[in-house]
Amino acid sequence: MSEHGDQAAPRPDEQPVEEADLAEDSRHDEDDRLKTDFVSAVLDAVEEGDSERARELVSPLHPADIADLLELTPSERRGPVAAALGDLVGAEVLSELNDYVRDDLLDSLAPEQVAEFASELDTDDAVAIIEDMDDADQQAVLDALDPEDRAAIESALAYPEESAGRLMQRDLIAVPEHMTVGQVIDYLRDNRDLTTDFWEIFVVDEQHRPIGTCQLSWILTCPRGVAMSDLMKREQTLIPVDMDQEEVALRFQKYALISAAVVDSSGRLVGMITVDDVVHIISEEAGEDILRLSGAGGEGDINEPVMDSYRARVRWLLTNLLTALVASSIIGFFEGTIERMVALATLMPIVAGVGGNAGSQTMAVTVRALATNQITGTNTRRTILREIRVALLNGATVALVLGIGVALVFHNVQLGGVIAAAMMTNILTAGLAGAAVPLAFDRMNLDPAVASSIFVTMITDSMGFFAFLGLATAAGLTG
Amino acid sequence: MSEHGDQAAPRPDEQPVEEADLAEDSRHDEDDRLKTDFVSAVLDAVEEGDSERARELVSPLHPADIADLLELTPSERRGPVAAALGDLVGAEVLSELNDYVRDDLLDSLAPEQVAEFASELDTDDAVAIIEDMDDADQQAVLDALDPEDRAAIESALAYPEESAGRLMQRDLIAVPEHMTVGQVIDYLRDNRDLTTDFWEIFVVDEQHRPIGTCQLSWILTCPRGVAMSDLMKREQTLIPVDMDQEEVALRFQKYALISAAVVDSSGRLVGMITVDDVVHIISEEAGEDILRLSGAGGEGDINEPVMDSYRARVRWLLTNLLTALVASSIIGFFEGTIERMVALATLMPIVAGVGGNAGSQTMAVTVRALATNQITGTNTRRTILREIRVALLNGATVALVLGIGVALVFHNVQLGGVIAAAMMTNILTAGLAGAAVPLAFDRMNLDPAVASSIFVTMITDSMGFFAFLGLATAAGLTG
Repeated sequence: MSEHGDQAAPRPDEQPVEEADLAEDSRHDEDDRLKTDFVSAVLDAVEEGDSERARELVSPLHPADIADLLELTPSERRGPVAAALGDLVGAEVLSELNDYVRDDLLDSLAPEQVAEFASELDTDDAVAIIEDMDDADQQAVLDALDPEDRAAIESALAYPEESAGRLMQRDLIAVPEHMTVGQVIDYLRDNRDLTTDFWEIFVVDEQHRPIGTCQLSWILTCPRGVAMSDLMKREQTLIPVDMDQEEVALRFQKYALISAAVVDSSGRLVGMITVDDVVHIISEEAGEDILRLSGAGGEGDINEPVMDSYRARVRWLLTNLLTALVASSIIGFFEGTIERMVALATLMPIVAGVGGNAGSQTMAVTVRALATNQITGTNTRRTILREIRVALLNGATVALVLGIGVALVFHNVQLGGVIAAAMMTNILTAGLAGAAVPLAFDRMNLDPAVASSIFVTMITDSMGFFAFLGLATAAGLTG
Repeated sequence: MSEHGDQAAPRPDEQPVEEADLAEDSRHDEDDRLKTDFVSAVLDAVEEGDSERARELVSPLHPADIADLLELTPSERRGPVAAALGDLVGAEVLSELNDYVRDDLLDSLAPEQVAEFASELDTDDAVAIIEDMDDADQQAVLDALDPEDRAAIESALAYPEESAGRLMQRDLIAVPEHMTVGQVIDYLRDNRDLTTDFWEIFVVDEQHRPIGTCQLSWILTCPRGVAMSDLMKREQTLIPVDMDQEEVALRFQKYALISAAVVDSSGRLVGMITVDDVVHIISEEAGEDILRLSGAGGEGDINEPVMDSYRARVRWLLTNLLTALVASSIIGFFEGTIERMVALATLMPIVAGVGGNAGSQTMAVTVRALATNQITGTNTRRTILREIRVALLNGATVALVLGIGVALVFHNVQLGGVIAAAMMTNILTAGLAGAAVPLAFDRMNLDPAVASSIFVTMITDSMGFFAFLGLATAAGLTG
């Protein structure tokens, strides 16, 4: 423990929680979400035309909380609330807002106002605000910006969406390696127009290529005479400017980075990405996989306009309808069998359904492992074999329970045997398909989360019906 | 752009990518994963007893990559590989390893070796290594530690698992508010036993309670005479020591934190959490939701022992078997109807299946919104209404397509009408259940990702069969 000053010994004058903390509780619940009563109080004040009161309530909030407040406001009341709050809804609040809610608000603002907000932000945050506007609006905002900001934002917009170039900020500190710690500190103190928000200093060569990185804490704990070249860490993770943001996020995670240098194709330093911009992406990308696997579209969000959600989801449901027809046509082959023993119709969805669930389990594990770069050529075969072993155990257990149950309830040992064998077959198929389908999509450079579940469900449904009805027919159960 | 030295103008002596980069390509693929050939070369060298060669290949790797290498090594060969690599498998590699792989390796080490690794790490990383060991092994390691490290780790282990207390490190810099920038720098330079890894300095009062936070960049860009009390930011996010790690991660995300002070119940500073420890949690927690929704258990991981995966998954499949029986018993009521018109048996899984998918979509969106704290009392009703509107549109579209298709194929307009009405009913039910079930679980303080899909599937299966077969019976289709 290396602390300065008082150690944590109990003291007689110790006070419990401060009153300020209690006041804060009137706004946030225990999960740090805004309380319903608080939101209602603000909305009521706006409704009654008491902007003063609304501002008074909101002004102690962090920009991220003001953004939450606007998200919690019904969309038809958002304009009036934002107007009443005035400058409390600043650039920082905008950059924290959910994309859909922000677009909603931006539509009501003049290009000059948006430009003013953009100029207050780091390039990456300004780009995030502007990039989703339609071309005409975007141009109007760019025209209203001063030339320097405009150039920075335009050059960011020239990079592909979701690339490192969009994510990076241009304000950074780069020094040559011959400078000493003292010279760096003096340079930082003397140049008042430098950025004051940075966590590491990049050391560059004469071609402006990064050759090392130096944490600020190392500079602060070192004597003035030490050369940057002796202090800096030479191993660094350089981010190519066209790298996809998901890859950027994985590098930050893997190498526990706080900030990283972004370089162009000739290796020159063009920007910096900091971890606070990446944290959102890690969460978004992991969340996207849930949404994609379920067919809700990667953007699925409770603030998404209803028509957008409809378009994203109905496509998936119609595809699902097609694959369901495949499974259903298999049942069609066995109509004669079902006619002779209608209990089969009652039991067949069990075999298909439990198989589908077993497939989902394997698929989720595989998609997650692919998303976190855990699977490579080295362990692909091993991963599939592992899933098959789990499926054998699961299949044997479920088949046994179901087989015995059916044999007892229907007083028909043969029917029990048939459903047990079909269940075993389908869970094994599910394990194989649940691992192989996403791996195959990944091998084809397609997102395994997008289409896997359609295929896996089709396979487990079809195999469920085929194995059960086919075995029943073959066993002469109905004959 | 506030940079020092050369600006990014093209230069005649510009070189393309350096050769060092090319050499690196022999180890990593384009996704920064270790290449299969590289892994094989290392494993072959170990196999042939050529430890020298193996170490030569591995030594340029980052600890995170050495951890990846061990994860990619088949479990039965991990011991020999780790032994051959010797001190290249150090404390940092251990702390980067997947939990299951680490436990595997630790079993083969003597308590003294584990203790040596633990003493090289920050408290939080040391705790992460030790916390999963069984009690006897853990005690042996603690006994082998020197008293100071042992006390730090024991006090961390006293906090609940997955709490801020386990996550925090005790090495931090805290200064009283009357100190000036110059005094802080001198203090840091003069005390060589202080930590050198920190991103912010905490300012504390006489009771050692944090009253402000100061970014190192602010200190570096300020004259020596400025008082910390004038430089620090007074608004800060304090983390209670018993806060759950998922909440900690959400705070870091919401307020874009780099580090945060951890306080005990009387508000005193007891530790610090940094964002690099939180990044893993954000990814893990989002990943857990995918796995839980699919019933693969929150730990689902390709390195999990087969028996653990089996136990986690079979429980879910057996529960699913029970709920499938509920849906199946509904079919049982209509056996007479099916006997008279066996085509119903062919079509009924379509109504159930597409409804199940619609339910999954809504459920994924709702679970994700709950996990990211987007839903509060204020917008619960609105969220459900929104899902119902999407469901009405989806239902109408799918019902229309399916109804017309069935009417044409079966030359039976009434059958088309019945299946369309059933589909509409089931997609609407799915939208309602997909939103309401996770919200209800959350209201009961249960994890909505764990049990929701079992219930939603049961509801959509049952309603699918009931609506279709019931309407067919009521319509006298088979009479």
